[in-house]
Amino acid sequence: MTRILYTLCGADESRPFSPHCWKVVQALEHKGLDFIERPTPFTEIPALEDGFSKTVPILRDGNELIRDSFDIALYLEDKYPDRPTLFGGEGGKALARFVEGFSQMVVHPGITRIAVKNIHDMLGDKDQVYFRESREAFLGTTLEAVDAVRQAEIDGFAEKLKPIRHTLKFQDFIGGDSPLFADYILFGALQWMRITAGAKVFSDDDPVGLWFERCLDLHNGVGRRVTAA
Amino acid sequence: MTRILYTLCGADESRPFSPHCWKVVQALEHKGLDFIERPTPFTEIPALEDGFSKTVPILRDGNELIRDSFDIALYLEDKYPDRPTLFGGEGGKALARFVEGFSQMVVHPGITRIAVKNIHDMLGDKDQVYFRESREAFLGTTLEAVDAVRQAEIDGFAEKLKPIRHTLKFQDFIGGDSPLFADYILFGALQWMRITAGAKVFSDDDPVGLWFERCLDLHNGVGRRVTAA
Repeated sequence: MTRILYTLCGADESRPFSPHCWKVVQALEHKGLDFIERPTPFTEIPALEDGFSKTVPILRDGNELIRDSFDIALYLEDKYPDRPTLFGGEGGKALARFVEGFSQMVVHPGITRIAVKNIHDMLGDKDQVYFRESREAFLGTTLEAVDAVRQAEIDGFAEKLKPIRHTLKFQDFIGGDSPLFADYILFGALQWMRITAGAKVFSDDDPVGLWFERCLDLHNGVGRRVTAA
Repeated sequence: MTRILYTLCGADESRPFSPHCWKVVQALEHKGLDFIERPTPFTEIPALEDGFSKTVPILRDGNELIRDSFDIALYLEDKYPDRPTLFGGEGGKALARFVEGFSQMVVHPGITRIAVKNIHDMLGDKDQVYFRESREAFLGTTLEAVDAVRQAEIDGFAEKLKPIRHTLKFQDFIGGDSPLFADYILFGALQWMRITAGAKVFSDDDPVGLWFERCLDLHNGVGRRVTAA
């Protein structure tokens, strides 16, 4: 059976950086499922699989096509129940949505402001045009104006992660003694920043930074195979 | 078997207001366990049960004494496994810590700044002295100075709850189709504000406000039995 994960890349396809795609890479590794990764530039995504989705990740699993990182994780949990669990039961499934909410509503906006110019600069020419236009409309200002206050965002970033720090007082991973999809949700965000911006946001002894390092080591260090910016 | 829950009150013991105690009231109701509530003023807590704990909630369950709301929930889940689950499995247990982190690190500081003067004014004379001294040391300023910027805190409060709003796009409760302890964690915080400050922080159609109303209706409306300030 052919299993293909379509992910996102810039001009260099050996450096896929999308937070949502990294969640799925870790989820597939967690389940011990083989797959081929197909990093794809922004403007080529709409043509993938006959226009199946405007965004990646897209997973082709034999005859099945699934989009959206959370939906893919739910699919994998349902389809491969005998492999290690991604959610640890129904409660974990429901609460992973809250972790997703925190990641997308609190963590992502900070990373966007830190990395948006770096991301732009990693893209091919055609993608740069698309990216600048769509992101400047979303941000309501130029990429350069956002980049000008980058350092302040970096300085204030670790403070926003207090809920993660609190969790790690009790356990090594968000999911408990070992990682769950909830860990991959937050890992994906920090991995996105690591690969695109390489910003140092944690002090050396910050428990969140140490947890992120543990996540980079998971599944034979799949997260480390792409170096930091 | 005598089951006693020691909670926190001001001068009026019919208006217990502690967020952590409300979590446990809902957890006991969720498990369908009878209990007697003993609301206790701040300065009388250290004498409870031969000095068992400096803080409430304290649960006496026959010969067992347990302190700390999360530990009490874990105890109840373990001791009464055949009653409705508070966590929905091991994943839900682990991720409830993250919800606790969000509640205590993001939601509580906002409510403290909104309600601290209201809480003070609800206390008996002896407790007022203790409360002012300890809270002003913690806040680094006077209760009156915090109260002076109360309206700005109220105006900015709903924005902080975006991760909850995101979760409620997918499900009626943080715990899924029905509530789990994670719901009670966040409910406890908002119930604390409702009883002490009565601040209107949500627009009428805010999904978080509507979820809070659903929580007030749970378990025969145990949360509504104490009126809003």
